[in-house]
Amino acid sequence: MALVVQKYGGSSVQDADRIKKVAERIVRTHKEGNDVVVVASAMGDTTDELLDLAEQVSPAPPPRELDMLLTSGERISNALLAMAIHALGVEARSFTGSQAGMVTTSKHGDARIVNVNPQRLREALDEGSIVLVAGFQGVSQDSKDVTTLGRGGSDTTAVALAAALDADVCEIYTDVDGIFSADPRIVPDAQLIDQITYEEMLEMAACGAKVLHLRAVEYARRYNVPLRVRSSYTDKPGSLVTGSIEEIPLENAIITGVAHDRSEAKITVTDVPDTPGMAARIFRTVADADINIDMVLQNISRTTEQRTDITFTLPRVDGPRGVAALTAAQPEIGFAQILHDEEVGKVSLVGAGMRNHPGVTATFCEALSEAGINIETMNTSEIRISVICRVDQLDTAVKALHDAFELGGAEQAVVHAGTGR
Amino acid sequence: MALVVQKYGGSSVQDADRIKKVAERIVRTHKEGNDVVVVASAMGDTTDELLDLAEQVSPAPPPRELDMLLTSGERISNALLAMAIHALGVEARSFTGSQAGMVTTSKHGDARIVNVNPQRLREALDEGSIVLVAGFQGVSQDSKDVTTLGRGGSDTTAVALAAALDADVCEIYTDVDGIFSADPRIVPDAQLIDQITYEEMLEMAACGAKVLHLRAVEYARRYNVPLRVRSSYTDKPGSLVTGSIEEIPLENAIITGVAHDRSEAKITVTDVPDTPGMAARIFRTVADADINIDMVLQNISRTTEQRTDITFTLPRVDGPRGVAALTAAQPEIGFAQILHDEEVGKVSLVGAGMRNHPGVTATFCEALSEAGINIETMNTSEIRISVICRVDQLDTAVKALHDAFELGGAEQAVVHAGTGR
Repeated sequence: MALVVQKYGGSSVQDADRIKKVAERIVRTHKEGNDVVVVASAMGDTTDELLDLAEQVSPAPPPRELDMLLTSGERISNALLAMAIHALGVEARSFTGSQAGMVTTSKHGDARIVNVNPQRLREALDEGSIVLVAGFQGVSQDSKDVTTLGRGGSDTTAVALAAALDADVCEIYTDVDGIFSADPRIVPDAQLIDQITYEEMLEMAACGAKVLHLRAVEYARRYNVPLRVRSSYTDKPGSLVTGSIEEIPLENAIITGVAHDRSEAKITVTDVPDTPGMAARIFRTVADADINIDMVLQNISRTTEQRTDITFTLPRVDGPRGVAALTAAQPEIGFAQILHDEEVGKVSLVGAGMRNHPGVTATFCEALSEAGINIETMNTSEIRISVICRVDQLDTAVKALHDAFELGGAEQAVVHAGTGR
Repeated sequence: MALVVQKYGGSSVQDADRIKKVAERIVRTHKEGNDVVVVASAMGDTTDELLDLAEQVSPAPPPRELDMLLTSGERISNALLAMAIHALGVEARSFTGSQAGMVTTSKHGDARIVNVNPQRLREALDEGSIVLVAGFQGVSQDSKDVTTLGRGGSDTTAVALAAALDADVCEIYTDVDGIFSADPRIVPDAQLIDQITYEEMLEMAACGAKVLHLRAVEYARRYNVPLRVRSSYTDKPGSLVTGSIEEIPLENAIITGVAHDRSEAKITVTDVPDTPGMAARIFRTVADADINIDMVLQNISRTTEQRTDITFTLPRVDGPRGVAALTAAQPEIGFAQILHDEEVGKVSLVGAGMRNHPGVTATFCEALSEAGINIETMNTSEIRISVICRVDQLDTAVKALHDAFELGGAEQAVVHAGTGR
């Protein structure tokens, strides 16, 4: 008997009708002979409505109380889903994150999972029940207070439960058919990816692909949980995330897809004294403002002056705070200017196939050049090439790369050893 | 430093504005130097909306899941109230019934409080925090599942906490000014009762007065918790429930008020064989249908036939089920007919002053007779006289009794020993 974990997002359970449809799918899975554990997010707009209520009573709600408030949403949707399953004749029980044994750090609004104790769920499953767990929440190991898990929390809950229960698969249900070689809204002939490695999916997620949260993919990779991304509106199998790039024979390695990201801004700090520790102080200043830096470029020092420019990207929403923090540190660090550019886009090519194939980089740059796109910054990993360009050229860049590597239509781009492409 | 428990009902916290007003009152109480524990019901229509959602997904929701669903309501209101208090500059923390140590029986939807372990609340109070507890809920001692407490659950939660924390008073906030000598909507010159004993309040609540739940009053009586009923819209002190009738010197005993109840029906089982055990079988039949019997009258046996009629009252909503249960038992018990009368009303006079004063009963009957009201059934306790009459005469009956015992205006009815009234 297999154990299947299924996660349904807010739009999948947004009203009574959708809840009943999802209940039917869950019961079908159960009738096929599986133990089923379900993680549901709050119904549709519930979280936003609760946040709105909170704002009405308080300009700065204490994080502990915000977590007490918001976790009601998942409680409601999972209880309703359990009722709908029960109405179809199958036993079902819902549990809060705390009851399900999700032990977390204490940071309200952004807690991390520390441990999962699934005994109570295990007992319910052994009694023949379908089990539902409120996603996005847990209980702090220190204060015993309820916590929420921050971005990607529900996906991460599902993966963590799958790992703790040794599930055969963790299915993430969403409103698209799966993971595509590029955003189908930009590239009409984008293809559904049947299977992708953890590392490639991590890169895709880190570079803007929104279908799975980076955090959930990393958790799945660490515990070897097979992840299936599929639509809650059809029976199509979707895309499977499994395996490591290490397991792919080099000749079979391919380029998997193109990701894009419109959510970043670029900051350049000019004429930084080129002495040891200066770059560190700039990054520490930004980090102390609680800002995550994405790509970093430090240009070569201009030898006559021993000064350099340091450029990095960060989430656009954090741009103003980053500028403010650096401005405050200017006297101490001694740089000349801060250039703040919000019109940047990031496009990335991801694939195990680019390892040991320098031709890929050349093809990449040629494709962008032919499309009239200027590369402003480039950054690579073993299986990814990312560049910054003007944000209004982003769609063109995505299409150009997707075509250059023949990711569309029936043919997939396979990088052959020795073709020198 | 005093400890005050305050309970706010659903209409008191029905929207963000009301929540902020209630928060101001709570902070005022705290600034007067008190430890404050608050119990809030769910906001306005929340419970009904959740029940509606439940009905949409399932015709017969499992009780366990209904409790998981409905308890979200109190979680939301108490978290929002905590935020509003915090916005006024005072520390506040909300807790679920389970977190507050409310241990209950396992009966979902109608759990009884078994124990209260207030340590976590005590710690929060000692840290200077205002404490909020979700009313109407607890956790089952057996299954560790969340339970709801049934009718009067939030009032009972407040009283139970007051008892466990040895509070100086438990204030029940409502939308009327306090407890009145009769329903002011029927009797315009009804007076606010400043103070009333536990036993008298129990009788008032049992006989139809809706301002406090019987269950909460009984809990308060058992643990000697002073109960204050007051309006959440004004600063008037309201009515205090405290003390026993045993403590009132006989000369000071008074008639306290008139209660009425439109929610009953009357059933008469005719020609019951007047042998030992027959009455018991009739009442067992009704009890097995999960119906609470209120007043019972067994007429004197008609000696020639050794048969008797048995009349009792019950909640009107349970009438049809009661008739069905008795009909099914007819062959076994052997009675002649079931008479089912829904047009009954019950009016009651309550007061410690009626002990040892037979004149009260006479005055009672004369007042009703003069008002043209026929007494169909009478039932008395040490401090109460109740009669059944036609429901369309109920208002007249209430007014007649209120006037006869001079409960209106400035003068209260005091029963003097020896007046033979």
